[in-house]
Amino acid sequence: MKKANIKAHAAIIVIGNEILSGRTQDINVSFLSKWLNDLGVRVKQVRIIEDTEESIIECVHELKDKFKYVFTTGGIGPTHDDITSKSISKAFKLKYGIHKEAYDILEKYYKPGEFTEGRKKMAKIPEGALLIYNPSSGAPGFIVENIFCLPGVPSILKSMVDGLKDKITGGEKILSQTISVQTVESEIAKSLEEVQNQFKSVEIGSYPFFRLGKIGVSIVIRSTEKKQIDVCYKQIVSFLKKKEINIIER
Amino acid sequence: MKKANIKAHAAIIVIGNEILSGRTQDINVSFLSKWLNDLGVRVKQVRIIEDTEESIIECVHELKDKFKYVFTTGGIGPTHDDITSKSISKAFKLKYGIHKEAYDILEKYYKPGEFTEGRKKMAKIPEGALLIYNPSSGAPGFIVENIFCLPGVPSILKSMVDGLKDKITGGEKILSQTISVQTVESEIAKSLEEVQNQFKSVEIGSYPFFRLGKIGVSIVIRSTEKKQIDVCYKQIVSFLKKKEINIIER
Repeated sequence: MKKANIKAHAAIIVIGNEILSGRTQDINVSFLSKWLNDLGVRVKQVRIIEDTEESIIECVHELKDKFKYVFTTGGIGPTHDDITSKSISKAFKLKYGIHKEAYDILEKYYKPGEFTEGRKKMAKIPEGALLIYNPSSGAPGFIVENIFCLPGVPSILKSMVDGLKDKITGGEKILSQTISVQTVESEIAKSLEEVQNQFKSVEIGSYPFFRLGKIGVSIVIRSTEKKQIDVCYKQIVSFLKKKEINIIER
Repeated sequence: MKKANIKAHAAIIVIGNEILSGRTQDINVSFLSKWLNDLGVRVKQVRIIEDTEESIIECVHELKDKFKYVFTTGGIGPTHDDITSKSISKAFKLKYGIHKEAYDILEKYYKPGEFTEGRKKMAKIPEGALLIYNPSSGAPGFIVENIFCLPGVPSILKSMVDGLKDKITGGEKILSQTISVQTVESEIAKSLEEVQNQFKSVEIGSYPFFRLGKIGVSIVIRSTEKKQIDVCYKQIVSFLKKKEINIIER
C-alpha cells in the first residue's frame, strides 16, 4: 500500500445514548464513510459511545493521534444532553465559551427575539475552533486540531460536509468493483482465496445476501489501483464460468 | 445506580470492512442493543473494526475486561475474509481447529457430499469454545470466556440469539418513556435541564426529528425505576402544557 493512503485514515466517533440503546438507527457512518472514500480517506475505525464527558474525552484522547482525521457526530444541539463542545474543550484544555463568529451567525439566522438563551448555547464552542458552516439550520459545527465535530441529525450533517472538502487532504481514492453471483459462499471460498493470495494490493470481500427471495454472494474487489482490480476481476469471472455459477449483476 | 446494573454492561464489536466502507448498513447493533436491554444488559460501547487479525485481537484485548459481555458480529463464514474464529483463538492463545460438535452439526446439516472443504472451515472454532446454535443455516457461533461470536447476516444473527438467554445474567431492565412534541429543542432546553437536575437516577434525552414534513422533538426518559420515570414524566408534561407545546405522541 502506498504511503499517501496509509496516512489518509479516519475514525468516526458516534456520540449518543440513543444509538447505543438501539432506539435510533445510525445512518451517518455509512454516509461519512462513502463521502470520505471519495476524497481518498479511508475510515479505519468507528466507535459509538455514551454522551458523557468522560467517555468523549477518553475516546478523543485515544483516537486523535492514531488517525489523520477524527469525525464526531452528535451532541452539538441546545439541550442538556448535548455536551460535545464542552467535552472537546476539556479534552484539549481550551476555554469553553461564546464563539464570536458562531454567535454572529446564529444572531443573524434567527428572527429578532428568537435568539433565546437555549439557542445561545449553540454558540458555545472551544476557543479558537474553526467553524463548519451549516446551510440548513444555522448552528455550526467546528474543528479543533484534527477533530471535526458534526451534528447527529443526518440531513443537517449531509448539508454541512460540502464545506469541508478543502480542509481534507486525501490519498488515492479506493476503487471497487462488485460481482453479485447466485451461489453460496462455500462454493467459491477456495477459488476466491487463491485469487486473493495472488493480489496483495487488492482486498477481496465476500458478502452473502438474501434479497428478493434469492440467496447470493456479492464479491467486492477493492484497491487504489484500477489495473489490479481489472486483472483480479477477470480471474474471478473466469473461475465463476468454469463452475457454471450465474452472475446476477456486475 | 445500583450495582447489578453497573455490572451488566456490554460492548459490541462489529467486524467487517463492508460496514467501515459504507457499502453495507449495519443493523445488528440496534437489534442486539434492544435485545440485551430487555435482558437488563446495557450496551455501553460499540466498535466497528477492520477484518484483520491485528485489529480483532487488539480490540478484544481492550474490551474483554472492561465489560461483562462482549459480542462480535461478522467474520465466521467460510471465505478467506472470515477470520474471527482464528483471531479469537489467537487472542486467547487457544488452538484453532476442527471443533468436534460443530463438525457433527454441519455434517448432519448438509446433504451427503455437500459438506465441502469450504464448509468444513466453519467447524474450525477455538478449542473448548461453547457453541451458539444456529437454527437457520447450521454454522454455529461460539463463546470464549465472555466473548460471544455471532455472524454478520442479520437474519441469521436474529435466529441465534434466543438460545443465548440462559447464558446472560442481566441487571434490572432499563425502562423508557417517550414523549414526542411539536417544537424545537431550544424551546424546551432550559425546562428539560431543570427536570434532569432534579432526577439523577433518570436519564433524559432530547432528539430532534423531521418526519412526515413535521419538525419535532422526542423526549426520552430512561431509568430502571418506573416510579422515577413517572414523576419525571409528569413534570415534563406539566411544563409542556404551560408552554402550550403540542404533544404529538406519548
